[in-house]
Amino acid sequence: MRLRNNPEAKEILEKSDYVIKERQANYFDNDNEVQIEIGMGKGDFIVGMALLHPDVNFIGIEKFGTVLVKALEKIEQLKLTNVKIINNDATELLEYFKPHSIGCIYLNFSDPWPKKRHYKRRLTYKSFLKLYKKLLVKNGLIKQKTDNKLLFTSSLLSFNNYPMIMEYVSVDLHSDEKITDNVMSEYEQKFAGLGQPIYSVWTRFKR
Amino acid sequence: MRLRNNPEAKEILEKSDYVIKERQANYFDNDNEVQIEIGMGKGDFIVGMALLHPDVNFIGIEKFGTVLVKALEKIEQLKLTNVKIINNDATELLEYFKPHSIGCIYLNFSDPWPKKRHYKRRLTYKSFLKLYKKLLVKNGLIKQKTDNKLLFTSSLLSFNNYPMIMEYVSVDLHSDEKITDNVMSEYEQKFAGLGQPIYSVWTRFKR
Repeated sequence: MRLRNNPEAKEILEKSDYVIKERQANYFDNDNEVQIEIGMGKGDFIVGMALLHPDVNFIGIEKFGTVLVKALEKIEQLKLTNVKIINNDATELLEYFKPHSIGCIYLNFSDPWPKKRHYKRRLTYKSFLKLYKKLLVKNGLIKQKTDNKLLFTSSLLSFNNYPMIMEYVSVDLHSDEKITDNVMSEYEQKFAGLGQPIYSVWTRFKR
Repeated sequence: MRLRNNPEAKEILEKSDYVIKERQANYFDNDNEVQIEIGMGKGDFIVGMALLHPDVNFIGIEKFGTVLVKALEKIEQLKLTNVKIINNDATELLEYFKPHSIGCIYLNFSDPWPKKRHYKRRLTYKSFLKLYKKLLVKNGLIKQKTDNKLLFTSSLLSFNNYPMIMEYVSVDLHSDEKITDNVMSEYEQKFAGLGQPIYSVWTRFKR
């Protein structure tokens, strides 16, 4: 994220057909399941997922335009047809999607907002869960990965006490033999390379 | 736990006043809160807790007599008046206690039973949670500590799906500045000494 601000980012993003500018009934030419990543960063995860799952449509959300331009370069180079981008804040998501239209929400290495006075900004705080509940289809999953202990444990408490149902929890994702198709984000590659454990939880809402 | 079997253990335990032999209305000369540790091993945790909290009564449960003799030696040497011992299996706990008479249940470094066919033996499996619910007072806590990833994550799922309320979760208990009075079990001293993270969760039942 420590990129020098790109003053041309806004213009680049506005010109690209990969970037969603206004609400539409469908952002793709098919009816495949739509999954979103909130905080897609430089896009390594969503690009990897799009290549691995051509029958799923992926939409990445990222508020920082400079970072998003890096992701856009990768997507354009690969001419991916199952990826779109939204350059906006997570709080604005309902502006883009019909209720219960998203199959899965990915939260990868989100900002942990470690200061106590900022805890409501964490992407797993209950106000965000309320938003995700509106977006997700029945039994749709939230899949979180992080290296941050505080974000992970505060997310577990937030999910449990919402209350939500946990499908999967790991305190060392990369040593879990059951997980064979993990796609790494750029942060994940960095932290795993340093030998840090990657924490993960999959959770869904009760109906 | 890898102690050579002590053939005199049974006799030593039968002679000791610290060991509970039959059900009584009260095992102590006061009405202080009673807390129990299931799987007290050689007793370092319960002895440390008894010294730190003289106004709480502690009862340790351990099925292995040879190990329990080691704990008994420490308790007798310190002439502790707020500790008792039960040499039995956790499944027999209701034989000793009135419903809703236990203030807190400690599960420290319990056997993880890693094999899939043994998962029902884990002390956080739902059949044990049902037992603990009968034993605990309203809002009484279960406090678990372990170094074992599988036991920790399967416990989180078990608590979540029961469903229970989580009060606290840590994936690195020893680096949590909020926890200033942690008493270490003998396993905890060993694993923390090896630099392994200690996982912890505090949970209670909904009423």
